[in-house]
Amino acid sequence: MTDVQAQLIEQARQKLGPKGVMTDANEIEPWLTDWRGRAHGTAPAMLAPASTEEVAFVVGLAAEHGVPLVPQGGNTGMSAGATPPADGSALLLSMRRMNRIRSISAGDRLAVAEAGVVLAALHDAAHEVGMRFPLTLGSRGSCTIGGLTSTNAGGTQVLKFGTMRALVAGLEAVLPDGSVHHGLSGLKKDNRGYSLDQLLIGAEGTLGVITAVALKLVPAVAARAVAWAAVETPQRALDLLRFLEARTGSIEGFELVPGDSLALVLKHIPGTRSPLAGSHPWHVLVEATTSDGTIEIGAELERLLASALEDGIIVDAVLAASETHAEALWKIRDSISEAERTEGQTLAHDISVAVTDMPRFIVEAAATVEAAFPGVVASGFGHLGDGNIHFHVRAGSHAGLDWYEREGAAITRMVDDLVTEAGGSISAEHGIGQLKRDEFARLAPPGRVHALRAIKQALDPLGIMNPGKLVP
Amino acid sequence: MTDVQAQLIEQARQKLGPKGVMTDANEIEPWLTDWRGRAHGTAPAMLAPASTEEVAFVVGLAAEHGVPLVPQGGNTGMSAGATPPADGSALLLSMRRMNRIRSISAGDRLAVAEAGVVLAALHDAAHEVGMRFPLTLGSRGSCTIGGLTSTNAGGTQVLKFGTMRALVAGLEAVLPDGSVHHGLSGLKKDNRGYSLDQLLIGAEGTLGVITAVALKLVPAVAARAVAWAAVETPQRALDLLRFLEARTGSIEGFELVPGDSLALVLKHIPGTRSPLAGSHPWHVLVEATTSDGTIEIGAELERLLASALEDGIIVDAVLAASETHAEALWKIRDSISEAERTEGQTLAHDISVAVTDMPRFIVEAAATVEAAFPGVVASGFGHLGDGNIHFHVRAGSHAGLDWYEREGAAITRMVDDLVTEAGGSISAEHGIGQLKRDEFARLAPPGRVHALRAIKQALDPLGIMNPGKLVP
Repeated sequence: MTDVQAQLIEQARQKLGPKGVMTDANEIEPWLTDWRGRAHGTAPAMLAPASTEEVAFVVGLAAEHGVPLVPQGGNTGMSAGATPPADGSALLLSMRRMNRIRSISAGDRLAVAEAGVVLAALHDAAHEVGMRFPLTLGSRGSCTIGGLTSTNAGGTQVLKFGTMRALVAGLEAVLPDGSVHHGLSGLKKDNRGYSLDQLLIGAEGTLGVITAVALKLVPAVAARAVAWAAVETPQRALDLLRFLEARTGSIEGFELVPGDSLALVLKHIPGTRSPLAGSHPWHVLVEATTSDGTIEIGAELERLLASALEDGIIVDAVLAASETHAEALWKIRDSISEAERTEGQTLAHDISVAVTDMPRFIVEAAATVEAAFPGVVASGFGHLGDGNIHFHVRAGSHAGLDWYEREGAAITRMVDDLVTEAGGSISAEHGIGQLKRDEFARLAPPGRVHALRAIKQALDPLGIMNPGKLVP
Repeated sequence: MTDVQAQLIEQARQKLGPKGVMTDANEIEPWLTDWRGRAHGTAPAMLAPASTEEVAFVVGLAAEHGVPLVPQGGNTGMSAGATPPADGSALLLSMRRMNRIRSISAGDRLAVAEAGVVLAALHDAAHEVGMRFPLTLGSRGSCTIGGLTSTNAGGTQVLKFGTMRALVAGLEAVLPDGSVHHGLSGLKKDNRGYSLDQLLIGAEGTLGVITAVALKLVPAVAARAVAWAAVETPQRALDLLRFLEARTGSIEGFELVPGDSLALVLKHIPGTRSPLAGSHPWHVLVEATTSDGTIEIGAELERLLASALEDGIIVDAVLAASETHAEALWKIRDSISEAERTEGQTLAHDISVAVTDMPRFIVEAAATVEAAFPGVVASGFGHLGDGNIHFHVRAGSHAGLDWYEREGAAITRMVDDLVTEAGGSISAEHGIGQLKRDEFARLAPPGRVHALRAIKQALDPLGIMNPGKLVP
C-alpha cells in the first residue's frame, strides 16, 4: 500500500464508516479473481459506499490523489472487467451496499434500482407489483443492475425485449471528476445533447460509476409455452424463426442446440432425457409468452409448429406438456457448457454476425477450424434469433492437458478473424474487459480505436476509472 | 470567400464534379434560412457529395484547411441546427444527393437508407415489401433519414415504437478526422466498447456526418381505429391512457387537445367540425393499430372506451366510422399550430416531464405563466403518453405587434425554469441547435456541460463539425 493509498483509505473511512472500508485481506480475497478464474488481481482495500453522495466523495478522493478505482458488482462478468490490476495500484469499489430499489411503479412501468441491486431481487420486486423486468441470465442470483448496465448484458430474452441498452430509461452516475450525472427523471423524450446515459451503458466502468438505473418494466407473463423442434440445418432453424415471427408476436426465446451438444448433455447431466425420439443434427428450443390471459399460447404454438412440420421446415417437434416438462427442456439448453466442461477442455467464443448470415457462418467456421486444427470439434449454440451464438471449440480426445496453452490462442485468433471477415463482433454480449482487449486492439478499425481513446481521455483524463479495461 | 475556402472548393469540384459543388448564390439561398424563419446564415458554397467516400474526402479537406462544415438534410429542423453561421465562415454540406435505399428486407426487418433519403420515400419502400417504418411527422415529405437520426426525431408514434434512437440498428458516419465509422452490419448484439452509433444519434452533426442508417422495420398495419374522447382534466386523459394500456398493446397514438385549441381549429380551419356534441375542457385523440388482420381493432377500441365511460374516466367519445372520419379527427390535431398562428402571435415550447407529472404540470404551469403575464393564454397539447407536450403561450387580444420582442424571452425563461424545476427537458424532441443553446447553457448542470464540451473537443478538436450548435 502506498502512502497516497493509505491517506485516501483513511479519508474514506472517516466518511464511509467501518462498513464502507475493508482492508482485511481475507475479506477482499474473493473479489480479486474473476468468475471464470482467468484473471487475478490485488488491491490494498475495498471501498463500499452506501449512497450516491458517498460514491461521489470516493471518486473525488481518487481524482485528488490519482488513485484508480475498479468498480465491481456481483463479480460475475465473463471478461474480467471488474478484476483489479495485479500490481495493487487500484482500489476495489464495491457497489453491493447500494442495494435499494428506490421506486417501482406498475402505472409508469418503471423501477429505479441502485447499482448493487441483485437481478433476482428486481425480478421479485417487479413480480410483486404485477409486472416483470424482462432480462435474465444464469447469474441472476448474484449479478447486479450496475454491472448488467455497464456491460450492456443480454441473456435469453433479447429477441423480444433487447439488451440492457433497450431497457434502461435513464441512469445516475458519478463521472470521473466526481460530479453526479442525474438521468433518472424517466423522461421518455429528451433531446438535450449527447446521451451520457447511452455512453455509460456498456462502458464497463471506464467512464464513470453507475449508481442507479431507471428500468423499463413490462406486463407480467400470463402464460408461456415451451417446445423443442428438430431441424436438418441451422438455416432450417432460422427459417422456423422467420415462419413463427411472421405469424405471432409472442416468440421470446429461440435457442439453437446442435445434436452433438444434446448428446453431451444426455451423457453427462443426470436426469436429462432426449426430448424427441431418434437422432437429429440440429435442434431448437422455442419459448412463446403472452401477458394476455385470454390467449391460448400453448395451442397457438402447437398449431404453428404443426404447420411448420407440414411445410417441411422442421422434422419433428414436441410441446412441453407441463411446467416441469418445460423446465426439463430449458435444463438441456442451460447445461451445454457444463456438459462440455465435463467431457474435456473447451474454448468458448461469444460472437455475433448478422442474423441472416449466422446459419452459414456456423457451418463454415466450424469446418474451417476443424480442418486447421485436426481433432478438435467446433460448434455453435445459443441465441440464433439475435445472431449471437456461443462458438465452442472442444479439444480432441487425444489432446494433452497442455492443449489450451498450446493451441488456444491460435484457435481464438482464427475464430475472431472469421467473425471479423463476416462483419461480426468478437464480443456479442460479454464485453471486452481484460480478456478480449488484445484481440479487440488487433481487429478494431484504427478510426474506432482513436475515437474510443479520445472519449476515454476526454472524460477520464487522470485514468482513474477501471484502468486496463475495454479501451485498447 | 477566403482563399482557403476557395482552395477547398476547387479541390472538392475536382473530386465531386459540377453537381457536387454549388457556388451560385441563388441556388444556395433557400438553404440559408431555417424552416421556422428564425435564423439566417451565409455560406460561400454548398457541397453535395454523392457517396460516403466523397463525404470522407470533403471532411478530410475541411480538416486539412480548418474550414467548418454544416451538414444539412431536408432543412426542416425546428431549432436551426442546420443553418450556417452568419459570418460565412462555414460551408454547407448537403446530404440530399445521398438518397439511395441500399437494401430493404422484410425477413431481416431492416432497411439501410442513405442520409439523404426522404422519410416518405422510406415509408413507401417499406410498404412495398409489406413492412412499415413506424416513425412519422409533419415534414415527412422533406425531412431526411440523416437529419431525423442526427436530431433523434420523435413524432406521433413514439408511444409504441420510440424515437429514432430506438429504431436505429446501426449507422455509418464520417468522423471529424475523415475516417469512416462502419456500423451498418445490423448486428443485434455487439459489446465492443462505447457505442459511437448512440453518441452520433442526437448529436446534431457536431461529432461527425451520418451517411447511412440501418433502420428497424415492423409489420405493416393491417387495421387501425381512431377515436376522439372528451375528458374533464389532463389527469383524466392520463387515466384513460393507463386504462387502455393495461388492457391492450395496440395503442399507438395518444394526443391531448385542450378545448381552447379545438375551438381555434374550428374557428380558423375550413372544413373542420366538432367531433362531439357540447363543449368540453379537454380532449384526447386515440389511435390503435394492429398488424394482425384477424383482430377487430375498431370493436376492441369501442368496447374499451365504453368501459372507460362507464368507469367515469371519460365523459363522451366517438369512434371514427370510416377512414375519412379518422383523417378528419387527425386533421384537427394537426391543425392546432396553424389555427393558433392565424389567431395571433404564439410562443412555442417543446417540453417534457415525467409522464405521471405532466397533467399537474400543464395545469400549474399555465396558471403560473398566465398570472405573471396578464392577458396571455397558455396551454399544452400533444404527446401526453410520452410526457411531451407543446406548451404554447398566445399573446392576449390587446397585445401589440412588439409582444414577441417585448415579452417572448421572459416568458420562455419562465417556462424553461418551470420545466427544469419539474425535472423535465427544455427540448423533448426538437433538439438544441442554435435557438435553444443559450437556455441550455443557462440551465444545464455544470458537470453535464463539461462532459459535452470534453466529448466535442475529443472527437472534433479542430471544431469543423457544425460549429455553434448544441454544445453550450
